[in-house]
Parts: sequence; C-alpha cells; structure tokens
Amino acid sequence: MKALVYEGPGKMSWKDVPDPVIQRPTDVIVKMDATTICGTDLHILKGDVPEVAVGRVLGHEGIGVITQVGSGVSQLAVGDRVILACVSSCGKCSNCRQGLYSHCLDPEGIPGIGWIFGYMIDGTQAEYVRVPFAENSVYRVPAGVTDAEGILLSDVLPTGFEIGVQYGNVAPGDVVAVIGSGPVGLSAVMTSRLYGPSKIIAIDLDQARLKRAADFGATDVVNSGEKDWKEQVLALTDGLGVDVAIEAVGIPATFTMATQIVRPGGTVANIGVHGKPVELALNELWISNIDIAMGLVNTNTLSMLLKLVAEHKLPAEKFVTHEFTFDQVLEAYDVFGNAAKYDALKVLIH
Amino acid sequence: MKALVYEGPGKMSWKDVPDPVIQRPTDVIVKMDATTICGTDLHILKGDVPEVAVGRVLGHEGIGVITQVGSGVSQLAVGDRVILACVSSCGKCSNCRQGLYSHCLDPEGIPGIGWIFGYMIDGTQAEYVRVPFAENSVYRVPAGVTDAEGILLSDVLPTGFEIGVQYGNVAPGDVVAVIGSGPVGLSAVMTSRLYGPSKIIAIDLDQARLKRAADFGATDVVNSGEKDWKEQVLALTDGLGVDVAIEAVGIPATFTMATQIVRPGGTVANIGVHGKPVELALNELWISNIDIAMGLVNTNTLSMLLKLVAEHKLPAEKFVTHEFTFDQVLEAYDVFGNAAKYDALKVLIH
Amino acid sequence: MKALVYEGPGKMSWKDVPDPVIQRPTDVIVKMDATTICGTDLHILKGDVPEVAVGRVLGHEGIGVITQVGSGVSQLAVGDRVILACVSSCGKCSNCRQGLYSHCLDPEGIPGIGWIFGYMIDGTQAEYVRVPFAENSVYRVPAGVTDAEGILLSDVLPTGFEIGVQYGNVAPGDVVAVIGSGPVGLSAVMTSRLYGPSKIIAIDLDQARLKRAADFGATDVVNSGEKDWKEQVLALTDGLGVDVAIEAVGIPATFTMATQIVRPGGTVANIGVHGKPVELALNELWISNIDIAMGLVNTNTLSMLLKLVAEHKLPAEKFVTHEFTFDQVLEAYDVFGNAAKYDALKVLIH
Amino acid sequence: MKALVYEGPGKMSWKDVPDPVIQRPTDVIVKMDATTICGTDLHILKGDVPEVAVGRVLGHEGIGVITQVGSGVSQLAVGDRVILACVSSCGKCSNCRQGLYSHCLDPEGIPGIGWIFGYMIDGTQAEYVRVPFAENSVYRVPAGVTDAEGILLSDVLPTGFEIGVQYGNVAPGDVVAVIGSGPVGLSAVMTSRLYGPSKIIAIDLDQARLKRAADFGATDVVNSGEKDWKEQVLALTDGLGVDVAIEAVGIPATFTMATQIVRPGGTVANIGVHGKPVELALNELWISNIDIAMGLVNTNTLSMLLKLVAEHKLPAEKFVTHEFTFDQVLEAYDVFGNAAKYDALKVLIH
Repeated sequence: MKALVYEGPGKMSWKDVPDPVIQRPTDVIVKMDATTICGTDLHILKGDVPEVAVGRVLGHEGIGVITQVGSGVSQLAVGDRVILACVSSCGKCSNCRQGLYSHCLDPEGIPGIGWIFGYMIDGTQAEYVRVPFAENSVYRVPAGVTDAEGILLSDVLPTGFEIGVQYGNVAPGDVVAVIGSGPVGLSAVMTSRLYGPSKIIAIDLDQARLKRAADFGATDVVNSGEKDWKEQVLALTDGLGVDVAIEAVGIPATFTMATQIVRPGGTVANIGVHGKPVELALNELWISNIDIAMGLVNTNTLSMLLKLVAEHKLPAEKFVTHEFTFDQVLEAYDVFGNAAKYDALKVLIH
Repeated sequence: MKALVYEGPGKMSWKDVPDPVIQRPTDVIVKMDATTICGTDLHILKGDVPEVAVGRVLGHEGIGVITQVGSGVSQLAVGDRVILACVSSCGKCSNCRQGLYSHCLDPEGIPGIGWIFGYMIDGTQAEYVRVPFAENSVYRVPAGVTDAEGILLSDVLPTGFEIGVQYGNVAPGDVVAVIGSGPVGLSAVMTSRLYGPSKIIAIDLDQARLKRAADFGATDVVNSGEKDWKEQVLALTDGLGVDVAIEAVGIPATFTMATQIVRPGGTVANIGVHGKPVELALNELWISNIDIAMGLVNTNTLSMLLKLVAEHKLPAEKFVTHEFTFDQVLEAYDVFGNAAKYDALKVLIH
Repeated sequence: MKALVYEGPGKMSWKDVPDPVIQRPTDVIVKMDATTICGTDLHILKGDVPEVAVGRVLGHEGIGVITQVGSGVSQLAVGDRVILACVSSCGKCSNCRQGLYSHCLDPEGIPGIGWIFGYMIDGTQAEYVRVPFAENSVYRVPAGVTDAEGILLSDVLPTGFEIGVQYGNVAPGDVVAVIGSGPVGLSAVMTSRLYGPSKIIAIDLDQARLKRAADFGATDVVNSGEKDWKEQVLALTDGLGVDVAIEAVGIPATFTMATQIVRPGGTVANIGVHGKPVELALNELWISNIDIAMGLVNTNTLSMLLKLVAEHKLPAEKFVTHEFTFDQVLEAYDVFGNAAKYDALKVLIH
Repeated sequence: MKALVYEGPGKMSWKDVPDPVIQRPTDVIVKMDATTICGTDLHILKGDVPEVAVGRVLGHEGIGVITQVGSGVSQLAVGDRVILACVSSCGKCSNCRQGLYSHCLDPEGIPGIGWIFGYMIDGTQAEYVRVPFAENSVYRVPAGVTDAEGILLSDVLPTGFEIGVQYGNVAPGDVVAVIGSGPVGLSAVMTSRLYGPSKIIAIDLDQARLKRAADFGATDVVNSGEKDWKEQVLALTDGLGVDVAIEAVGIPATFTMATQIVRPGGTVANIGVHGKPVELALNELWISNIDIAMGLVNTNTLSMLLKLVAEHKLPAEKFVTHEFTFDQVLEAYDVFGNAAKYDALKVLIH
C-alpha cells in the first residue's frame, strides 16, 4: 500500500510500504477513506518528537471501512464504516473503566499510552491502518455523516469538548474565554454552547482567525495584540473575570493569560501541548480558589458528539477548508503548515 | 480592653486599646474566651504582609460569647457562645450564595476579601472583637464542645478539609498523600478519612512530626529527606502515583513534589500559602489529565465539622499542645514560633 | 391600594385594601409594575387550598419598583426595579446556605415554607406588596428587560429549569421528553437546551399546544392521545427510552407515563403539583437504576436565567400571549382559566 | 461435576450434571472454592421467578480458580483466583462504558440483562462455572483475602454500597437511616462510613438483628415495631428528618417508611427487591425536593471495595455466620432459609 512515511527531521514521503496485518485478536484493519493533519504531525516532522522512529507512518485521525477483524472481535464486522479515535485503549483496565482512555494501562505491552498512531505505531495517513483494541477504539458512523464531518471526531471535536469544555466545567450562564482560534480552540468555541454559556469570547492575535471564531459561535472576540486586551475581556464580564479560561495554544504566555483573566472560583482548562515549563504565580493564585485542569483527550464523548453531528446539531463540516486526494498529501502538508497564508483550518485528504 | 497590637516588623505588645463598638447593623461584639496563633500571624509579625497597619490587633481565630448585637441581627443573641470563622462574608452576594465565602464581593465597602481579621480590621487576639456580617460569620457552639476543640473550627479544620480534602476530590479507596505535617497538613490527614481513603500518607522532613501524623490518622509516613522518598510513596500505590496529593507547606519544592507523585487522572490540592511563583512542568503535565486546585478556606463546612466534633467523631482536641492565658500571649508566640523546639502544634490562649 | 382579594371558593374581587407596611427590618415594599396568574392561583380560587384565608391577596409572581426598605436592608434601595421570586427565603439558615430556598427553615417565625405569597401572606396581584427577607427574595432587573420578560423569572422559568432540567440531570446529547406543554412544561422545553440535548420531545394531548412546543424548542412532538404514543417516543430514542422524562402536569397518569418511557440509568423529574398519591411500579422499577426527583423551585438560578434573558439568549417574552391592565384582572383570570379556548399561555397584568 | 439444580417450585438437588464448557471466546471456566446463598435464591426456589427453567444450576455469588480461558481472553489466565461478580457485562456497550453494567446491552445475544447466573444461565452453586464476558465479570483476588471475605464482594458489599450509599448520596456529616438489617442492609450500614456520616441509624423489627447492626457500625438503632419509631428517628436528627433513607427490605411498608423520615433535600435509596407496586404520596412529596433512587448493583466498585477488604479496612468477614461444605448445600439452604431461628446472616459453602 501507499503511506506517508517519516524519513527523519524535515523529511517525509508518500511511498509503498507493506500492508498492515492483524497482530493480535483485538485488532482490525481499516481501509482509509479520509485522513487529516494535526499540529502534532508538524512537530513530529520537524523532529521535535524524538520517540518517533524513521520509517513510521504518520497521522492519528481517520475514517474508513473495516476490511479484516481479529479473532477476538465480536462487535465489529468487515464492511463497517468507522471513525478511528486518536487514542487507542483496551477498555478493560482500571483507567479505561473510568473513561480515562488516555491513560490506558496498556495491559498487553503496547508501548506508550493512549495516543500511539503515527507515534509509537504506524498511523492513519495511509491506505490501510491496523487498529489495536479496535472495539474500544473505533466507532461506527451513522448514515448521512460525511467524511468531512466524521474526520473531526477522531480528535478535534472531542479534544475541545473534553479537555476545554468539560474539564473547564462550563455551566449555563457562564462567560467562557478561549485563547487561540486554531482548530482545537474553535472546537472549544463550538462545543461550549452544549452547556449554555452566556458569552464565548475568542481571543487571538490574528483578526482573520477571530472572524472565523465568530462564525464558529464566539459571541465576542478580543485581539490579544491590543494593549488593553485584558481590560476588554474583563469588560465583557462583571469585572471579576471569566468563569472558564480555555488555553488552546500551548506556550507560556497564553497559559499565563488564562490565569490572569479567570475569576475567583473559576477554572483554567489547558488544551495546549506545551514544550516548556511555565511560571505559575502561586504567590497570587493560592488565594484564588481556581482550578487548573489539563490532559490528553479520552475520546469518551466521541459517540455522543457523533450523534449530535449526525443530527446536524454541531456543524463539524465547518472545519474543513481544503480538500486533497491521498497522492496530494505533501501538498496538503504545505497548506496546513502555512495555514495563515492559505487561510486553512483543517484539510481533508481522501 | 487588652489586645495584642502589631507595632511594626518584629514588634507587638499586649496593651490597652479602646473597646470595639458596633459599626454597622450586621455587626456583633464577642467577648473572647479563647484564641490561637496561625502561621500567618508570624508572617505578619515579621513584616511580610505590608497591608497590615501598625496598631492593628492581630489574630483571626477565636471562640467567645456575644455581648452586643447590631440592629439588623435577628438570628443571634447576646449570650450566645460562638466560634468566629476566620473568613467574614456577607452571605448575600453572588459568590456567597454559591458558598464561595472566601471571595465575598464585599457589597458594603469593607476593604479586602473574606479574610479580614488581624489583617484589614482588628483581630481576635484580644478581649473583645467586633465581627462584621456576624450572621454569616459566627457559629453557635453546641453544648459539650470545649474551647480547645472549638478553636480549631475557626480555620484549621475547615482549611484542611475544604481546600485539601474536598478540592482534592478524595474518594473511597483513594491513596492520599499530604505533604507537610504542620497544623493544616494534619487537619487534611484527620479529615481525609471522611471520604474513606485506603491510605493516607504523611510526608515531612521531621520524624517527630511524622510520628504525630500517624497519631492523627496517617496510615503510612515517608520522610522526604530520604533520597528515595518518591519511590517510597509510589511503592504505597499501584506504581502509578497517588490519587490525591495535598500540598500543605507553601514553597515551590513541595508544590513540585505534589505534581511528581500524583497519578494520571488525579488531583493536586494546594493549601500552602505561597510567597513566590512556582515552575509548573506543563511540558510534562499537559498530558497527565490532572487537576490542580487551590484557594482560601470558605468555612462553608464549619457547621458540619463542628457537628462531627461535638459528636466526638473528629478528635479536634488533639491539635492543642500548649495552653496559655491571655496575658501570656507573648510567651505563646514564642512557643508557637519555635514549634519544633517545643514540639508545639496549636497553642490555646484563654 | 387596590388588590385582588380571595373571598372564598369561587369568589374574588379587585378592591381597596390597606397599603402594606414594613413589618420587619428585612422587608421591602414594592409598587407592582406587572404580575401574572399561575395554575396554583386557580386551585386556590376553587377552594382546593384550605390554608388560604378569606381576605388573602392572591398571586406570587411580579415585577415592580421598591418604594420602602426596612432598617436592616443594605443591599437594596428605593427606586430599584426588581423581580419578586415566588419563594421567600432568609438566605441564612442551613437550608438556604445550600441553595434549598424552597425549604427555608423560617427562623423568624413566618408560617409556611418558601412559597408564601398569595398563600400565607398577601400576594402580588396588587398595587403594592410587602416582601419579607427581601435581600434574598428580590432581584434587580438589568436595563432592557421588559415586564413581559421579567415576569417569567418569578416562577415559570426557574421552575422548569431547576426542577425539570437540573433535577433531571439533562446532559449534552440526551434525549429529553417533557410531558405536558403548559407554561412550566414549555419552560422545561426552552431551558433544556442549556445542557445541549440531542432531542427534546414534547408530549401532550392537544395538537395546538404541541405546535407551540415546537416553537419553544421541541425538536419532536408526540400526541399522547394516540394509541402508540409510547412507541413513537421510543422510536425517537435508540429503543431503550429517553434519558430524562420530565412530568409537567401533576396527575397519576402522566407520572406513570414518565416512568414508562425512561431508560435504565435515566431520570424522571417531576414538576407537576399532585393532588393524589400515585402508584409506583417498584416491582418493575427496582431493577431499573432510575432516579426520581421532585420539588418546589428554589429560584437559586433566577439570576443566571435573568442574565440569559437580558442577553436575549432565552426568549422569555414568548410566554406572554395576552395583556391586561390591573383593573382588568378578573378578565385576565377568565382568559387564563380558559386557556384552551383563548389559546392562552401566560397573561401579563400591568 | 456436582451442582445444585432447581427441580421446580420447592425442589432442588445436589447432583451430577455435565461440566460447563467454553462457549464463546470471552468465556472462562472457574472451579469454585466457595459460594453462598442470597435471598433471591430462596425466591427462585419457591417458584416466584418463573423465568428460571427446571434444570437450572442456582446461585450467583462465588470465588474460585480459573481452569480454562476462551481464545479472546488476554487479561486473565488459568490459575488466577477470582471473585465472580453477580452481574455479567460485556464492558464495551454504551451502558457498560458508563459503568452501568447492570444494564449491559447484551450485544452478543445472551438473554437477560446483567444478572444472569442462576437465572438465565447456570449459576455458582456448583463445582465449576462458565463465566461469560469474563474480563469484565471476574476480579483477581489479592493475597491474604480469605474465601469468607471474598465471597461478600460478589454481590452483598457492592449492592449495599452502590445502591444504598452511593445512590443515596451519603456525604460527610449526614444522618443515614437503613431500614432492614439483613445482609444487604448491614452492607449499607458498614459501607456508609466510607462517606463520613455523623449517624447511621439501623431500623428493624428484630432486636437481635439490631444488636448485630450495632456491631456492623450502626451508631443508633430503632425498633420499628415500637409505636413511636418515627419520633425516635427524628429525635436523632435536627427534627427535619434523615439526609439519606436506605430501604433494604423490599415491601411497600418499608418503602413508605423511608419516604416518611427523609428530610427536604434528602434522598431515598431503594435496595429492596419489590414484588408489588407501592403507593407514593406524591401529593405530599412533590414539594419535598427529595430524590428517589433504585437499581440493580453494577459491581463497578467491586475492585475498590476489594482493595479496602484486603487492607482490612472493611471487616467483610463479619457477614459469615455459618460454614458448610458443598455436599451440605441443602443444609446450608435450611439454615439460610430460617435465618432468624439459626441467627444466620451469610452462609459460606466451600
């Protein structure tokens, strides 16, 4: 089959590799209909994630059709059209039983935790993919859901919802601020309204992204490049700060911004993938009665979000700005890697 | 009356000051039966808290009898024996209505937030105290509760329970670690068992304090001066870390320790009062699905804890190691300020 | 002043009565701008509620302007435009501190529990009203909120939301059924979406009411007069039943309907005011892992809902179908008492 | 092998039957070390449960050693000593993923819901048992846990804890009443203290059972045969009722008792297996803001409780009052069926 292979820092190629095969009774093989690219893939490509071996097939998002099932798979069948969760999990260990799929205890010796596609094992930017622990890691797609919608359920929508909105404890009437209007930030913007907030404030440096945020459901936007951005945010509250501040960038400055605009009793939810430690002003915050939550997506809300997408209650299709075929995958990387230039959000590769 | 007056950094005196008077309809005046000293008082005395004016009466814990009530007070009467919550709160603002007394919105213009005694207004190390917002800030003492028990309800027991145990989400079967075996750490140790943990691990540098921690309910103790302290803690778990790590010291090193021993999906609850920022290893922790909680006590569980103390289900009296009369208050400060030397925990001044 | 006075079963009159006066320091007097009629008022008028004395001024909903404040009132002022919560509560007792205003422990000896207007004390269908415990029982109206919107916050919107939606544990993706499309049922329909359900099914016998339910946000409607109504409801689920069944009628048949359509693990939330016991099929339901919740509104979400109304996120104004002046109050009763004939929902009297 | 076989109403025999065999890849076979008898077995024996076919092996509790594993079983091995949960569940369906094992959606066509042993399939009062969905339905036994302790984890301890204590929302400081001091009621008594209640009141008609309840952790006992039993219960509260009323009998009278002693804002948790509908006084209770919970055990807390038993924090061994060998099983039934006469609680058959 063809697949996108990591060839070392800065290098990748779309080339022939052996077809994946069933390795354990709980595996399935999926023929991919569509995949997409995540910011993490760009980090890997740069060489920032040294655990990724040369020769690894990239990608952790995807939708396709099952072509083979392992002998222990009873609840899935060949021909099922499924979404692949970006997190693989056994569904049986003590963490999985509590829905903490991101920290599956890996009882069968697969290296790494929940996230393994395109990282510890071959990923989804390929014609075929082997999916471990398939019964807990793929989800049947209801009729009427397109590839462009379904692909968002692999990672982006659950991440914004679980880590941003749920960990953030968004509640009816809340004022929510989302720092960063990339795909995951916009997911938090879009899914926040499932808990009835009064305001969803998008904060970003880029006016074009803020405009898009408004289209995704932000009720207000603030450009953090402006000197008085913080005052602008507070003016949208009762003066005490936002109930929930969602960090969706992954750098120290934006994390600090989140701690500065949250009200006493509020929550900071960190979605961003950080590469450096941050300074936490505990000398000021110890008295603030705030909560700081963080984590990798569990995809334990994937089914529920998929149901809402199928019923047209979450416009997932809005994320896809560009489409490519599999053999145009390098071009897709170029567009996604220069998102500002191309005004790109998510690219669909099919 | 006599009161302990702050005279500037390093200086205080027990001397005559004017009796407090009712200033607003919601005030009461309490004749103090007993008070105690908190670590915060030592900080103030050193001059670390510049907001405290020279001439301020110190102290924020106490028990006594009401001698006067303001015209708006209908649910308290002269002669009521009451515990003073260390936090004063109106009970009516939007924060108070949600039990967030620590961040009372202060609708009547009293400076500062919930904690004001011995800080923004005269405190409890005195013969008489004016208590603002008394109906929400003092609690009637059931028969049979001694001063040595009741004094613990002002601050120490609710702080350990609310900020350590409740914010820490302690649940039946959990392994809980409490870093620091001073009064507030021991309060977290003692009150943890209200949520049925399987293990309560006390962590401290001082063997004498660890011994006391065992007497307060710690099932295991670990001396963090030992090189392999972390391995010792993990060996008391399933290897993944503790469910709840409670920080009860207030320095960067102990906060970092808490983040290092908490398991994926667990909680760090910070009780310590910090004087400096801390470095948070978000580059490692972003993926950990942990929660970091912090805050000032609300005393919204004071009534409940007082009921358990009255029914002899929480041995609050264990905290008091030394007793003094009011005119020995300077001696009490010496003992409390040199707790290790005197093997002191809480001192009762009556 | 003029007021609507209960004269015994079936009799009432709009007549002169003495103006209300401040009785306790926590009272305020409100000049009413608008009031409305509730189903409960009709019951009282029929004589079904014998505790209501002849001579009682009726009504428990209203909006107006404060004209006098008691000496203990510091957070409200003459001239404030306020909504009167239908439930009066001291805000200080142990129940009120937990937000259980409906069961205020009544520390100052006012007879009855939370609901007292037009029941144990004179009500709101009058030119002036005395409001006990005013600081916890009236809410300032933000600019831009009309009488027709504000009047809904006294009772209807909080009741549907607190007892139906919150007690019902509505969660994102849920299928919610609301049995009964009167004002409170429609309030549950409208406010359900604050928790992001996938479907809101309105169930009623009357096709006109079902049509209105769709306008209020029901995604599906089922006429319970049809033989296969239950099958129709189940067909809108995965076959196992609804996640939340809200009863908003108050008769045994509709309560039983709710228990028949709820799925294992789901919740029945009873809003209806019942006059008779019901048979609960515990022989079938003991194994169902359902929860049955019920209660009187606390109005502890009034502020939050009011904020959403002020921001035009809840179209409260939809409830008002007819308007009258105070001296047409008897006519208003006729219309509201014959709602089907006049296609009436809520009547505004101003 | 030998097994206890149901031969029709009132008849059973300990006799030779074919050994169980692996039927599906997720099955295991367990050689039983010990089993016990539940009240439900007595009902089946009487013929009250017509779904139970003649020839069925009885029993749903047990502990033993795995002798064979199906081809799809990777996390269990021959030789593992395991406790059999009384509820069998796939662990993968949408209900199981939420911990609602009692309502496993049964994706592979096994008739019945979660509880199937000794009901829809052959049970545990036998030398060998086939366990479906074994990876989610058996639990490895830590070293040091005896059969007499472990057997309690199959059903009794999780049932009292999950349906009584957790569904009852027991919280620190609560007053809890448990109606009925049979095995499941005593389990609720014993496990209540995992949530730090201030009082645990056992209510029963039998003074000997009440005495045992005190030994299991009841702080107070009330004989409901006494005319003023209700006043006695209320006198142990602040006069308003208990926070949590747990029904552990299963008849209308005791359910009604629970609704009569619960305070406003409290919870009734029904554990009892009911054979008849009950009358619910919704005409009085609609205004009470109570919650009524009920259900079949999920055993999703089995691991946690087992950990506490292994650490000697729950004295599970107290339940076993009589021991028998497998070939004395009929005698064991006689003793358990005449519990009052023999002062029996649980019988261990090994």
